[in-house]
Parts: sequence; structure tokens; C-alpha cells
Amino acid sequence: MTLLDDWSISFSMSEDTKQKIIAVGADIIHRKGFNNTGIQEILKACGVPKGSFYYYFESKEAFGVAVARYFSSRLGETAGPLLRDKSYTPLERLKNFFRFFRDYFEKQGWSRGCPIGNLAQEMGDLSGPLQLELSQIVNGMVRAIAPVIREAADAGQISGTIDPERTAGFIVASWHGAILQMKVHKCSAPLDNFEQIVFENLLVR
Amino acid sequence: MTLLDDWSISFSMSEDTKQKIIAVGADIIHRKGFNNTGIQEILKACGVPKGSFYYYFESKEAFGVAVARYFSSRLGETAGPLLRDKSYTPLERLKNFFRFFRDYFEKQGWSRGCPIGNLAQEMGDLSGPLQLELSQIVNGMVRAIAPVIREAADAGQISGTIDPERTAGFIVASWHGAILQMKVHKCSAPLDNFEQIVFENLLVR
Repeated sequence: MTLLDDWSISFSMSEDTKQKIIAVGADIIHRKGFNNTGIQEILKACGVPKGSFYYYFESKEAFGVAVARYFSSRLGETAGPLLRDKSYTPLERLKNFFRFFRDYFEKQGWSRGCPIGNLAQEMGDLSGPLQLELSQIVNGMVRAIAPVIREAADAGQISGTIDPERTAGFIVASWHGAILQMKVHKCSAPLDNFEQIVFENLLVR
Repeated sequence: MTLLDDWSISFSMSEDTKQKIIAVGADIIHRKGFNNTGIQEILKACGVPKGSFYYYFESKEAFGVAVARYFSSRLGETAGPLLRDKSYTPLERLKNFFRFFRDYFEKQGWSRGCPIGNLAQEMGDLSGPLQLELSQIVNGMVRAIAPVIREAADAGQISGTIDPERTAGFIVASWHGAILQMKVHKCSAPLDNFEQIVFENLLVR
């Protein structure tokens, strides 16, 4: 074994541990919130020695940015393809996208909420780096949805007075707000209400 | 001074202190979040001795319920009258209502957000009593707006296909979501987008 092999193995083990801390931490933060989750609690759940956190992350804030990016990647990987599946019409794709999350929330007993929405609400005023990262991620959500709305408009599926970019921003906001209502009402009604009003009143009439 | 006088003075001082803890605590929680705010920090800001918290509140959770009710009362007192001011049309009243909060957020540098939305997002899964209280408060917001939408419909100001109750729930959700976007983008755009789409695309076309 050469020095280079040694180094690359140690790098890879270290990188694996870092990714594990991010994934396990993300899950706890999704359930309990960012400020309510302790670093020691995450390390314990990972089986990683106490005190090794700062070997992987500069600060809890830097860890938070890594967790936000992790959430964003996971959301993009799981739900993103639904927006691009051309075997459905643009409007059907949009519906499938939101129904995917509705099904997830049903499995969670209408809890947890959107991890990005949660972090935005909790950390938007408390951390400059997190605020900037979350602002970009929210913009990314809007940019993922806007072309599908534009496609629906081009196909004559939705009202011609709709501005796709502005409407995409509004729909992402409305979805985050519907999820917020779901968290306190503990039922599907706010999500069902979102679907009905967006697809029957806002986009199509 | 009779025993009764004595008792009523001591009751009133105790009640004043309790109300002060709620008001000061509400302000800190609005800025920093519920889990991120310590009891000692609130007592210190009030000039109330350490350790006296549990004389006034059974638990931090019970205190949270009192804070949620305080926020709800304050919102109702300040913005509620705008919804009932008959010198404006129903649609104008709705716009005035949301502009009132927009002006508040502008003064706050697009920070803080809706205190009820913040608590709902942060505590909806973590405390049964807070979840139930916030569910009722969110329902109260919807019930405050719905009659104005119904009035606008009756006056022929908005589309006849709009269901006032469902639309009120959706608008409150969309507003909370727009505020969430405002917190990460740190600008008025999400709130302006809300106003344009609700009043130009959703209600009136």
C-alpha cells in the first residue's frame, strides 16, 4: 500500500463520516428543529466520538449550511424527475410533484413539514450564511417549477394572463404556507385546499 | 387598609409581572424563536428574580401557550379593525390588512415574520398544547378574512367561482409562505408578489 492509497482511504473514511453526520443530523433537525438539536445528540446517533464535530465542520452554522444543501439535493433527486416526466402533461406533472410530498406527509402523520421551509422560518434572521443559502435554494425551487408553468401556458392548459415566473414564486410560497397549516391542524385539509385552489381557481378557471 | 385591599394589590402586582414576562418574552421569541430563547434571558430582560418563572407558569410550554394567545390578541387588536372599516370596499379592506403587515415588516428590515407562523412551524410537532392553540389561532385568522371575501363576492367584486371559506384558508397560508420567503430573500418581492397574484389573478381576473 502506497502513501497515496493510505491517504485516499483515510480521506474517504473521513468523508463518509462527514456525510453520515450530515444525513443523521438532517433527519433529527427535520423532526426537532435546528436550534432544538444539539451537536452531541447528532454525534451520539452517528456513533461518532464526542468532540470530533469541529474536525468536520467549522461551526454549527457551517454544518447547518451543509444540512440545507443536503435537503435541497435530496428533494431535487426524489421529486425533481416528476417535473420532467414528459409522459404527463405539464399540469399533471405539477400535480404529481405536489402529490408526491402530500403522500410523504401522510406517512409522517402530517408532521415534519418542508425541511427548507422549516430552516427558512427558524434561521432566516439568525444566520447570514444560512439565510443566503436558503434564499438560493428557495429560488431553485421556483426555477424548477416556472418552466412547467410556462409549458402549461404554451400548451394552452392554463390562463393566458398568468405570469409563469411570478406564479411559480407564489405557488412555492403557498405550498410552504399550506404545509405550515398542516403542521398545526394535523390533517390533509390545507394541502388539499392548496391543490384545489391552485389548479381549479388560480391556474385554470 | 383591609385584608381585601391588600390581597387585590398583591394580585394586581403579580398579574402585572406575569403580563410583563409574557410581553417581553413574546418580543424576544419573535426575534429569536421559541427554543432559542431561554427563560433566564426573559426574566433578566424583565428585571424579575431568577427562579420566579414557575410561580407564574407551570412550564415553558404553558408559557408558550400564553405567548401565542398574546400574539393573537395583539394581531387582532391592531389589524382586525382594518377588516371591519366600512369606509372601504371589501377588497380594499383586504388589501389594507395585508399592507399593514407589509409596512410593519418593512420597518423590521424584512425580518421577524409572523409570530404565529413562526411558532406553528417551530412547535407544531413538538408540543400538543401549543399545536392545538396555534391551530385555533390560525382558524381564527381564516374566520376573520372569510366574511370579507364573502362580502366582496356578494358585492360582485370578485369571481363568482371563488369559495370564500376555502379561499380564506388558502390566502392565509399563502401569506405565511410569502413571509417565509421574505425572511430569506430579505426584500419585499414575495409580499408584493402575493398582493399582485391574489388580487389580480386569484380573486379578480
